[in-house]
Amino acid sequence: MLASVASRPTFKRLPRAVREQQMLDAAVRVFSRRGFHEASMDEIADEAGISKPMVYAYLGSKDDLFRACVNREGTRLLESIVSVVGDDLPADEQLWRGLRGFFAFVGAHRDGWAVLYRQAKSRQPFADDLAALRTRIVAVVAGMLGRAVQAARTSAHEQDLTASAYALVGAAESIADWLADHPEADPDHSAARLMNFSWLGARQLLQGELWQPSSA
Amino acid sequence: MLASVASRPTFKRLPRAVREQQMLDAAVRVFSRRGFHEASMDEIADEAGISKPMVYAYLGSKDDLFRACVNREGTRLLESIVSVVGDDLPADEQLWRGLRGFFAFVGAHRDGWAVLYRQAKSRQPFADDLAALRTRIVAVVAGMLGRAVQAARTSAHEQDLTASAYALVGAAESIADWLADHPEADPDHSAARLMNFSWLGARQLLQGELWQPSSA
Repeated sequence: MLASVASRPTFKRLPRAVREQQMLDAAVRVFSRRGFHEASMDEIADEAGISKPMVYAYLGSKDDLFRACVNREGTRLLESIVSVVGDDLPADEQLWRGLRGFFAFVGAHRDGWAVLYRQAKSRQPFADDLAALRTRIVAVVAGMLGRAVQAARTSAHEQDLTASAYALVGAAESIADWLADHPEADPDHSAARLMNFSWLGARQLLQGELWQPSSA
Repeated sequence: MLASVASRPTFKRLPRAVREQQMLDAAVRVFSRRGFHEASMDEIADEAGISKPMVYAYLGSKDDLFRACVNREGTRLLESIVSVVGDDLPADEQLWRGLRGFFAFVGAHRDGWAVLYRQAKSRQPFADDLAALRTRIVAVVAGMLGRAVQAARTSAHEQDLTASAYALVGAAESIADWLADHPEADPDHSAARLMNFSWLGARQLLQGELWQPSSA
């Protein structure tokens, strides 16, 4: 019975997917350890326990491999945020959970963040990939804010929501970059700091209140 | 009298400084128009009305020239913030003026921001220069928050202030990047949005209050 199931084509393809993930795991470790420039395909193949031609055959050049790493880590990051944010929770709780998920991910992958994110940011064509990923994250956050506004039955201009999403994502990115360099820092503290910084401002927006300058 | 003054060595050096600024002005215009790759030293020399060897003699290679542009624009940006923030004003007024100065600068230099900032960010060694400039800005902002805390006679941990400075700078950067792509957007609106987003959170910090999650 098991033998006949194992011979079906869908099961034959499974090892390839698994092997690709193993290669990506190995590549992330080697890129994190060495940086993009110093990382060699030999070391990545060694780390994955696979021949170098096989790595090329599966995932292409070092550039392709690096892009695949950045995209996979980026998607995991988004998942780690979206999976913990319950749509039915109060807005502050959603924001808190999302921030905590984000900083927990960064805290658990400090080396990866420092290398993958920073190297990708400062090198084309990776910088464009990262910008596209960032746009996806901003859209997800703006959507969350939009639903919170609807739930609060207040009105907010779409541009205000978008601006808040940009502000939140930019602030989170900036603190995450600091966190990656501080192994002693607790990711939950970073989440709480950003919560303190942003929540009351966000609540104001949700209630349709606006801060006004006292002088022009 | 004028002739004798003009012949003094300090006055002889003045035209060089003026000429350097003219070359930088020309270089910023050409880089903004063409992007780093497409910009040629010929076009920059033409734009400045100076021979190409003279440009090389004054400011070095295209890389050196681009770095000089980024550093000059960065310093101007910092000046445009610091010059409008009065130390003796209430904290929210300082923040508001600083944000308004920042977004006004970006709004007035959209092309420059799009090219200089984005190209510098995604290319070594410019990315390191930009990171260093960012660290200076964070230090300036953290100092402003620190003085506001002292004035409010409350206590705040230095790490909380630093985190808030990172959050504020990251949020501002993120919204500025959006602003650069939206010529129809009013810089003052961007400043007001970030003020709404961040001010109440910052006020909380200044008063020593902390947001607490309702569940762990």
